[in-house]
Amino acid sequence: MGGRPKMADLASHAGVSTATVSRVLRGKPGISDATREAVLRAATELDYVPRAQQRTGIIGIFLPDLTNPSFAVFAERLDAVLLQHGRQCVVVNAGSPSASEQAALEALRDLGVDAAISVSGASDLEADTTPQQQLIAAGVPMVFINGNATDLPSRFINCSDEEAIRSSVTHLRSLGHERIGLAIGPKRFLPSQRKIAAFQRLGFTRSSIARTIFTVEGGQLAAGRLIDSGHTAIVCGSDLMALGVVREARARGLEVPDDLSVIGFDDSPLMAFTNPALTTVRQPVQAMCEAAVSSIIRAVEGDTLDCTELVFHPDLIIRESTGPVS
Amino acid sequence: MGGRPKMADLASHAGVSTATVSRVLRGKPGISDATREAVLRAATELDYVPRAQQRTGIIGIFLPDLTNPSFAVFAERLDAVLLQHGRQCVVVNAGSPSASEQAALEALRDLGVDAAISVSGASDLEADTTPQQQLIAAGVPMVFINGNATDLPSRFINCSDEEAIRSSVTHLRSLGHERIGLAIGPKRFLPSQRKIAAFQRLGFTRSSIARTIFTVEGGQLAAGRLIDSGHTAIVCGSDLMALGVVREARARGLEVPDDLSVIGFDDSPLMAFTNPALTTVRQPVQAMCEAAVSSIIRAVEGDTLDCTELVFHPDLIIRESTGPVS
Repeated sequence: MGGRPKMADLASHAGVSTATVSRVLRGKPGISDATREAVLRAATELDYVPRAQQRTGIIGIFLPDLTNPSFAVFAERLDAVLLQHGRQCVVVNAGSPSASEQAALEALRDLGVDAAISVSGASDLEADTTPQQQLIAAGVPMVFINGNATDLPSRFINCSDEEAIRSSVTHLRSLGHERIGLAIGPKRFLPSQRKIAAFQRLGFTRSSIARTIFTVEGGQLAAGRLIDSGHTAIVCGSDLMALGVVREARARGLEVPDDLSVIGFDDSPLMAFTNPALTTVRQPVQAMCEAAVSSIIRAVEGDTLDCTELVFHPDLIIRESTGPVS
Repeated sequence: MGGRPKMADLASHAGVSTATVSRVLRGKPGISDATREAVLRAATELDYVPRAQQRTGIIGIFLPDLTNPSFAVFAERLDAVLLQHGRQCVVVNAGSPSASEQAALEALRDLGVDAAISVSGASDLEADTTPQQQLIAAGVPMVFINGNATDLPSRFINCSDEEAIRSSVTHLRSLGHERIGLAIGPKRFLPSQRKIAAFQRLGFTRSSIARTIFTVEGGQLAAGRLIDSGHTAIVCGSDLMALGVVREARARGLEVPDDLSVIGFDDSPLMAFTNPALTTVRQPVQAMCEAAVSSIIRAVEGDTLDCTELVFHPDLIIRESTGPVS
């Protein structure tokens, strides 16, 4: 492949593991003098330049999925706000294949980005944050949108799940709904946990919560369970889930909103064009992206990141998928 | 900003223009000895490494718009196919602001990508291709999806506009439509020109062609004109235009497909969920991305790019926005 030498190249040249190379280069203990010397000799022979000296002025953006329109909107806004600050960015797919996030982080490090903004990258509370920790330790500050991992020294920018659930439920109750269900993704994701907690604080029990996955198919599955147990309205963890709920309702001969009211989350592009036009909760994407960019630019310029969580308030966009209880 | 020195840094250090630095570094004539010496001294003092020596093994992908789902699908598929070949990629927004494509190309060059795949990057026939030519001249091979610029030594991978129009019109004629209109984007885009030519070859005249822009708003505008002149069916240059056509028809009290049939182009995600579900032409994205990746990888490995155009055949996906003429 040629190209600029990486840690892996040093490792194979010196006949040691990449982890050992990393320990040597970061001056960690527990390495024999002979090994340390072999690694440093490899670095000299291969003309290895530590990443921190290869900065490009470019900011990396991680997306968990390039085709999910709600993530794409964040990428587009981040790009626009960064450009206003005279900064270019590149988008990397943190991806679904399990190995891919690590590879994506390594790619960004190899590219020599100045800093990184991750969309939903710290939302999976069971994920190993070692790759992010390594990137930050290598001098690449990170800001996370929609996530919060206490072991990462980063700023976290979130949309209030509490507000999203409360405004959705208030709207449905004003339409006379009492049997309201929540269709949500896996519990290991922070937005799932927060939405479930907010939903339970409003008086709902486990029997009104269907945990599946955040996709159209996940919505279909959750809808089946919640319709079977007599719910007349369903609040969803994503717009895609809401489209799945509508699809499942139709498959059972029900009309939306006449027989079932449905609320999404995100207000991704095109939700005004769905059948019916989707009532959903809109994240304040522009404000969130401005906050992320201003934090990351201060960090790049040498300020210490203020590692607190910023919480933004969403808006309920009422369209045609919600109506009075029948 | 710090970071790796760029041509601009050399230029300001040497007190000359970036263009002059570029000419010196590429060994072009027309530069005085004093200037050449000043630039080379700046390169030495700033420890400038020419881009061609900074390769990272990573492939750059250009998208004209991160949020348009039809482009995002290409990015996602390219990423997946590249990963299968053990290659990471980064996505760069070639963007709408006029200066942005040049900046994006420079960003990719600064990052040291091995090669680049551009989606729709060579589709604007009036665009200046100098930035792309410079990238290619700097040793970064490029492959273009949906475009063809004869002055670029690249491979071009297209979906057949001829087939797209022919299958759309054949379907509408089989439903009894005779007054069929074409809603299309600006003429300077290759897909516009090719679709218009294909449409005219089927016997339609200028009065049945509305040229606006490829967005929802462009579709609304085109629909107004074509409905006013008595068309009963509209073939669109993009799915977003088709959604705009449906919106305009509704605003005039018309039903789709009862009063007006509508066909999109792309089959972007979620088109099965629109109201009505959209009949549209699906590009063979997977096959096109496999061809692009296999070409670019051969080029990275040193093979000369076969600079011909590959044309792929699309499928008509019939859903609910087309019906018999009333």
